[in-house]
Amino acid sequence: MILGVDYYPEHWPEERWETDARMMKSAGLDVVRIAEFAWSKIEPNPDVYDFGWLDRSIQLLSEAGLQVILGTPTAAPPAWLARGHPDTLPVDEHGRRREFGGRRHYCANSIEMQERTRRVVSAMAKHYGKRVEIIGWQIDNEFGGGRTARCFCPNCEKQFRIWLKDHYGSLEALNDAWGTVFWSQTYSDWIEINPPRQAAEQPNPSQVLDYYRFSSDSWAAYQQIQVDLLRELCDSRQFVTHNFMGLFHDLDYHKLAAPLDFATWDSYPSGHLDRWRPLVYPPDSTLSPVEPAYAYDVGEPVITQMGHDLTRGLKQAPFWVMEQQCGQINWGAYNPGIRPGTVRLWSWHAVASGASGIVYFRWRACLYAQEQYHSGLLHHDASPDVGYEDLLLLSQEKTLLDEISRQPFESPVALVLDYNDLWAIQIQPHRQNFGYLRHLFVFYQALTRLGINVDIVSPQADFKGYKLLISPTALLGDSTLATRFMEYSDQGGLLLLGVRSGFNTPSKIVVDQPLPGSFRDLAGVAIKSWHSLPPGIGYTLGSDLQGLSGQATIWAEALGPDNTAQTLVTYRSGPFSGMTAISERPLGWGRVYYCGFYPDNVQALGLLRYLVNRAGIPTIPRLHESTIAIRRGPYTILLNFSDYPHIVELPGRSVTVNPRDVQVVRSDFLR
Amino acid sequence: MILGVDYYPEHWPEERWETDARMMKSAGLDVVRIAEFAWSKIEPNPDVYDFGWLDRSIQLLSEAGLQVILGTPTAAPPAWLARGHPDTLPVDEHGRRREFGGRRHYCANSIEMQERTRRVVSAMAKHYGKRVEIIGWQIDNEFGGGRTARCFCPNCEKQFRIWLKDHYGSLEALNDAWGTVFWSQTYSDWIEINPPRQAAEQPNPSQVLDYYRFSSDSWAAYQQIQVDLLRELCDSRQFVTHNFMGLFHDLDYHKLAAPLDFATWDSYPSGHLDRWRPLVYPPDSTLSPVEPAYAYDVGEPVITQMGHDLTRGLKQAPFWVMEQQCGQINWGAYNPGIRPGTVRLWSWHAVASGASGIVYFRWRACLYAQEQYHSGLLHHDASPDVGYEDLLLLSQEKTLLDEISRQPFESPVALVLDYNDLWAIQIQPHRQNFGYLRHLFVFYQALTRLGINVDIVSPQADFKGYKLLISPTALLGDSTLATRFMEYSDQGGLLLLGVRSGFNTPSKIVVDQPLPGSFRDLAGVAIKSWHSLPPGIGYTLGSDLQGLSGQATIWAEALGPDNTAQTLVTYRSGPFSGMTAISERPLGWGRVYYCGFYPDNVQALGLLRYLVNRAGIPTIPRLHESTIAIRRGPYTILLNFSDYPHIVELPGRSVTVNPRDVQVVRSDFLR
Amino acid sequence: MILGVDYYPEHWPEERWETDARMMKSAGLDVVRIAEFAWSKIEPNPDVYDFGWLDRSIQLLSEAGLQVILGTPTAAPPAWLARGHPDTLPVDEHGRRREFGGRRHYCANSIEMQERTRRVVSAMAKHYGKRVEIIGWQIDNEFGGGRTARCFCPNCEKQFRIWLKDHYGSLEALNDAWGTVFWSQTYSDWIEINPPRQAAEQPNPSQVLDYYRFSSDSWAAYQQIQVDLLRELCDSRQFVTHNFMGLFHDLDYHKLAAPLDFATWDSYPSGHLDRWRPLVYPPDSTLSPVEPAYAYDVGEPVITQMGHDLTRGLKQAPFWVMEQQCGQINWGAYNPGIRPGTVRLWSWHAVASGASGIVYFRWRACLYAQEQYHSGLLHHDASPDVGYEDLLLLSQEKTLLDEISRQPFESPVALVLDYNDLWAIQIQPHRQNFGYLRHLFVFYQALTRLGINVDIVSPQADFKGYKLLISPTALLGDSTLATRFMEYSDQGGLLLLGVRSGFNTPSKIVVDQPLPGSFRDLAGVAIKSWHSLPPGIGYTLGSDLQGLSGQATIWAEALGPDNTAQTLVTYRSGPFSGMTAISERPLGWGRVYYCGFYPDNVQALGLLRYLVNRAGIPTIPRLHESTIAIRRGPYTILLNFSDYPHIVELPGRSVTVNPRDVQVVRSDFLR
Repeated sequence: MILGVDYYPEHWPEERWETDARMMKSAGLDVVRIAEFAWSKIEPNPDVYDFGWLDRSIQLLSEAGLQVILGTPTAAPPAWLARGHPDTLPVDEHGRRREFGGRRHYCANSIEMQERTRRVVSAMAKHYGKRVEIIGWQIDNEFGGGRTARCFCPNCEKQFRIWLKDHYGSLEALNDAWGTVFWSQTYSDWIEINPPRQAAEQPNPSQVLDYYRFSSDSWAAYQQIQVDLLRELCDSRQFVTHNFMGLFHDLDYHKLAAPLDFATWDSYPSGHLDRWRPLVYPPDSTLSPVEPAYAYDVGEPVITQMGHDLTRGLKQAPFWVMEQQCGQINWGAYNPGIRPGTVRLWSWHAVASGASGIVYFRWRACLYAQEQYHSGLLHHDASPDVGYEDLLLLSQEKTLLDEISRQPFESPVALVLDYNDLWAIQIQPHRQNFGYLRHLFVFYQALTRLGINVDIVSPQADFKGYKLLISPTALLGDSTLATRFMEYSDQGGLLLLGVRSGFNTPSKIVVDQPLPGSFRDLAGVAIKSWHSLPPGIGYTLGSDLQGLSGQATIWAEALGPDNTAQTLVTYRSGPFSGMTAISERPLGWGRVYYCGFYPDNVQALGLLRYLVNRAGIPTIPRLHESTIAIRRGPYTILLNFSDYPHIVELPGRSVTVNPRDVQVVRSDFLR
Repeated sequence: MILGVDYYPEHWPEERWETDARMMKSAGLDVVRIAEFAWSKIEPNPDVYDFGWLDRSIQLLSEAGLQVILGTPTAAPPAWLARGHPDTLPVDEHGRRREFGGRRHYCANSIEMQERTRRVVSAMAKHYGKRVEIIGWQIDNEFGGGRTARCFCPNCEKQFRIWLKDHYGSLEALNDAWGTVFWSQTYSDWIEINPPRQAAEQPNPSQVLDYYRFSSDSWAAYQQIQVDLLRELCDSRQFVTHNFMGLFHDLDYHKLAAPLDFATWDSYPSGHLDRWRPLVYPPDSTLSPVEPAYAYDVGEPVITQMGHDLTRGLKQAPFWVMEQQCGQINWGAYNPGIRPGTVRLWSWHAVASGASGIVYFRWRACLYAQEQYHSGLLHHDASPDVGYEDLLLLSQEKTLLDEISRQPFESPVALVLDYNDLWAIQIQPHRQNFGYLRHLFVFYQALTRLGINVDIVSPQADFKGYKLLISPTALLGDSTLATRFMEYSDQGGLLLLGVRSGFNTPSKIVVDQPLPGSFRDLAGVAIKSWHSLPPGIGYTLGSDLQGLSGQATIWAEALGPDNTAQTLVTYRSGPFSGMTAISERPLGWGRVYYCGFYPDNVQALGLLRYLVNRAGIPTIPRLHESTIAIRRGPYTILLNFSDYPHIVELPGRSVTVNPRDVQVVRSDFLR
Repeated sequence: MILGVDYYPEHWPEERWETDARMMKSAGLDVVRIAEFAWSKIEPNPDVYDFGWLDRSIQLLSEAGLQVILGTPTAAPPAWLARGHPDTLPVDEHGRRREFGGRRHYCANSIEMQERTRRVVSAMAKHYGKRVEIIGWQIDNEFGGGRTARCFCPNCEKQFRIWLKDHYGSLEALNDAWGTVFWSQTYSDWIEINPPRQAAEQPNPSQVLDYYRFSSDSWAAYQQIQVDLLRELCDSRQFVTHNFMGLFHDLDYHKLAAPLDFATWDSYPSGHLDRWRPLVYPPDSTLSPVEPAYAYDVGEPVITQMGHDLTRGLKQAPFWVMEQQCGQINWGAYNPGIRPGTVRLWSWHAVASGASGIVYFRWRACLYAQEQYHSGLLHHDASPDVGYEDLLLLSQEKTLLDEISRQPFESPVALVLDYNDLWAIQIQPHRQNFGYLRHLFVFYQALTRLGINVDIVSPQADFKGYKLLISPTALLGDSTLATRFMEYSDQGGLLLLGVRSGFNTPSKIVVDQPLPGSFRDLAGVAIKSWHSLPPGIGYTLGSDLQGLSGQATIWAEALGPDNTAQTLVTYRSGPFSGMTAISERPLGWGRVYYCGFYPDNVQALGLLRYLVNRAGIPTIPRLHESTIAIRRGPYTILLNFSDYPHIVELPGRSVTVNPRDVQVVRSDFLR
């Protein structure tokens, strides 16, 4: 278990560096991430490198007993590059070039930027790649941040056509895949195809989806330039990673994570409360809880948890938090001050969730520019801030943290996340506020309420070992996926498919067979009709299962009547009355379920309680919504994010968890 | 009475076509609209035409007993045109060219597009203009859709100057008409005049109004190119029409409809509920009813009715519904599934309202692109959807539908709609949410609640035969209109003028005489003062008429004291206290009323009940808001759009109309 | 005391001019402002001047006994200039050139526009500069209006670099001042620096702040061109002024006002209610009162008052209202009609607040263009409107108005307003709805509720003579300001500092010392921590002072523990519990207070009641929020803006002020 801090020595007088290093070490920190964003310090003029200051900084840190992670500085190209090569700057969907003065001001497809990247990364790797002080590399910073995932410049226009040629082989295939016969969109020459900027009326959704894929692939390719250089020039003990952004979804994180040694993410619970809550809670239904007052500075624990679980799922392996909030941030609407104990709680949460490293952002509040009101472990004036005080507490618990960290993270349940499906729903939701992540979250939060560890994995992940697999919206799911699901279920797994599964082909045209398309045989159902339901409209459900009552809202599909599956839940009112709402079908040693409506929180809880019981997965009853329970080996870690004590009922014992506190319970009760 | 369907054979394998044709015929359909949007199939390369596939399709349809309407495919120019001539693409008000990939991506003033239009339409007309299978032509599709009515490209810039020269003759006349002496806007050369793109501060409203007129005229001129070719090259039995969009108002539909044989429109009740409700119900007053739950899939019947009445009024003649919704749509916020019985009810509504043809959109749900989630009579997998089932019911009622269809549509009341007034109010509403259509709708909905047929007509329409004529906001009304109104009233008609009548000249500068300007002698009133009233502020009304109480809100004008008209309603509070609010004046055999305030629903109902009684127009008492009553000859058609039965009290009898059902009552009771 | 009217003779037939002049005089008016916006009449072609019409107009006005103020017409350059020199047109932040057809369509940094300005102003000054009929000049009109304060064109780009060079001397100094080491923003050449258009992510706040300063300075320099010419060419008895816009804050009004003889502003109470209410009342707290119904046409009197006080403070001297609303306006959301008595009340309000001239906008409602629905003293048809009737009443009170006008305006309290601080908060508020003006207004409205005259002054103003000085948010306050404050307090003044004082340096980077930075010694406090508080979150306050209870919300700072000041108010809950919330410290003969939280209305009232008592400033108890009390010499002017009578308790007597009426009370009770 490693604790560290993000540090920018270039922001401070050199005479301060030693003091900083000493204070870091004495606060129990092990590693320091530096050099991120330091391109203009490292290469003040083209091809003129200055590693002197960085060498001195690393030496001081090393002398203090700290190890170093180096960031490649490419997230912030220097002014001389923007000036000399304006075509390296990205262009937005309205055709406006975005200018120098912030960060991420480059196009991944710029040849010049790629060449400049090769040079600066090579220079750094040659200089530091064999040094023992350096334990690893973070490539760039937060790919896609600040709405930079998709560029619409002439470079991208050309590369998009090449990408399409590679992908489809022929124009005819592309015309078929995009259904361009509609509205006379047929292309007769590759040159006619543009990025989806601003069409008269909306653009072709297949074109948009492919542009999202192309853009994501462009960043993966750009990252690969750096990965290849670092692999080639650095000692193999130096890891290579990137810091992801949790629920951010403009890029295919599964593809980006693939070539890395492990994944990391930047966790800002109080900011994510603001930013992600609208993503996962629906604005137009009763699913959206009144915001609990406790969350204002600790964040919504289930949302934070989802960030951890998603990042762990990128490689189905332990991860790091490369930036851990340790005080107020500067980029939210309100940026509340953080109360004592919160940073310790967040740290415990990360470790319990499988983080093997936590790096606090940042050492000292920066005096300058865009982030000048963002906190650090130290105040602007170098006095300790609330995070520093928490860190001192935490360092006393390091033995227990290490013990937890060593335990395997095992999840009996996995949720499938496919960025292609997400984008397809985003491009054509058909119903306002459907939201791919929102639908996924309905199932996710129910599982956390049951105290069950959950993985969030790619459709290409290894499903073996999961007792229950949930695929909320496999919209573009094809026969390959259906086969993988079938094999999984065949071997004893329970599989739950959600609405809209198999509606489209991978290029986002509708299948011309009965729905759910490729999953029809798997689920043993045929969808006769599907309805988007506006707010206030619902179809009554009937079943014997606890919690599975009330009304189907938002989205409903009528299963049958030609089902081979059995009926678990039935519609009891509305035009689908009498038809199946949830089906159940034995398949090999397992079972396949199709949930034909978009459940609310209570319904999802009822359904999942039924399924996990069927799967033999133990649960914790009556967990309060502010309390998270995570299992690591023989330990159960209980975290209370509220301002009141909560009692958690574990088998044979009740455990009281104090406000904003953690309890680690050793037992084998869940086995 | 003709039933038909919109069909895109090019979207489906040729081997399927025969089955489709057979199924259409057996569902009771008579005609099929095809070829709309098929430009790139018809002319895959410049000047290379391929009519083979279309010939085969028409032959199969014909053999199945179906007649064909051909769409000219110009709404979706092919990719080769956009590539070869980027200047055919429209430019938005921010100067950004809109790109290929959707539809309507062309500027009506592009010389190249006009030439390409001539060629493709000529080719089609020569090929199909004499064939008996073809009964008519639909030109293009939904002119102005997708915010394409107004283009700001260099072509338009030049044409606008020519249009202005034609219109004003001299720069001096233009400077006078636009009042350019204000803010030093005087033009000294035509070249100085631009489209109203983005001025520093807002642009001159007279310039904007003329740009709206110019843009509308540009589309009329573009359409005329096609009308002329079709008239020249086709058999005169083939009709020529265009599909309008109901309450859409970026174009002057009266001008566009003039050269056509009849008007058609595209009726999507569930979508129009979303899109038009904010246009006709005010957001800031009690006029906006809580949305009735029944409306979620049937739409708001009064809004749908207004679309029918407006379209019928375009030529004061029977019309078609060229696209009739027959299941869920894809372009709304929620796109609810449609319940059984709804499509039949919509069809009855259209026929009762004077439609002599209904063409369902579309035959089979399309697999492709932008409209892939839009329904058809058949599902994507070719199985029957809810509309198909309804159609089978409807075909059993065809005798009665035909009988109704043969009856004349007679309206005792007409509402005057002038797009120039609408645009002028839109450009300078003076009071947020005044809304030209919203003000018109207040009167319109009151008439529908009284069970009275209403025409919505142009100010150039023939007013003879109407017992009551309502001109809600004749803002730009000049002496010509005043004279027409005077003649109408002279001969016995009742005329009601609403607020803001005669305030401006036709070029949108304020008249320098006492208000209501040109209408002063007609109405016999002089407006001393006019007040825009913010939300929550009102002036109490006093009168002996039922319903005409409460407060004048939104807008109030003080009539008098120099009126020659009598006082019908008086202000009883506020600064206008004691002055006239509604005046009444005998004129020849008729009467002229001026309503000096913007009435709410109840006040409008009270006023109109008084006026229709005076005019001797019979009414139906206590019609529920979900129930529509329409008279056709000796028939009264009653349509219940709700989920509950309603009793309608006709003279001497009560009729129960079941939920989502229609009752046709034969009687002469209203004569 | 001068009454006047804004007049546009060029809008009306010449034969009307004499009648207008006679009517003006008989309504009690003394002066007429003309020629504003008349550039294309004065110079219809480049370098061809026509003063004939203007001479005739001035002669007629003069013959009727009216004096004339001339507007330089540069706010609306003619079409020939825009055509011939498109680079004179401004460019918005998206790079789009704004076009001719409105007003203010020019860039202050355009060399061509500057030259054209010199020529037209010289021509006018030569022609009129010695005439006795002309009493003064208004330069241009409402600098910055219509979002034109900041231009982003190539001219500005170049000038910005020059401004920066002048300001910083070297690139190194600029890099330090902007903290460009952050995110690798270091500039290596001046040419790399651009206006902050659209960066990837947000731009550097120091760069933005300097662009705001540069833009403001550009207008000051542009105005100076005209000031210099008028000073050189005109009789020194002719005054030179400009009409400001009250709470408008895109320009540094203190700098713009400096070279003028006196300041004027354009007062539109009903419009400012709409536009400024969101600026000064917070949307997310209980501070925002329910809008009082009476305000709908009179405006919010405290907001109007603030406009007067701010304008008077620009030069700490009497001012004019150069445009006084006298009926409905046209640019608001609702534009209500104005009731009788309102214009008289507004006029009294202006005079009481220190206006030595009131010019009504406008003589007659214009028939033309953008302002065609704006009222005048006369209706469009030349009949008297409500303002004209009020003016007749007012002219009977001229003796008393004159008497009041002659009295000195003395304020015991001043509020410091610094546009640099305002912009810095605007650029990085850190907490949504913090708002510089909103924070200032909390203190301002409390003082008006106590019946105390207030000045709003620049940080460079003369503080001597004030008993209490309030600096709400001296964010960028440096040691120079701290020294001035110290001298003020030393000599007996009470000084109140609000939250965020001294947090930043003048170039907007955070100070690296303990907060409040430069003010630390002055206030005798050290801020241990500061918290932005989201809605619904507060820390309980404890104190013995009446009104100073409840919770600190929005923003809280923990003072101490290392304070040398005493504690006046303490935090009693939350993480700052036990720490100081408001400190008090004797300094020389005076005292310094630091209010460590953002008070609500009640708390501000409590704090200020305490402070004014301490300072020996008399107050009026229980003033109703709709009633304004202003002291002028021995007079107290009481103005009731509501529809109900209110009793005001003055020492020894109660005075009843009737609805929408004024009472002038002579007494020495407040001395």
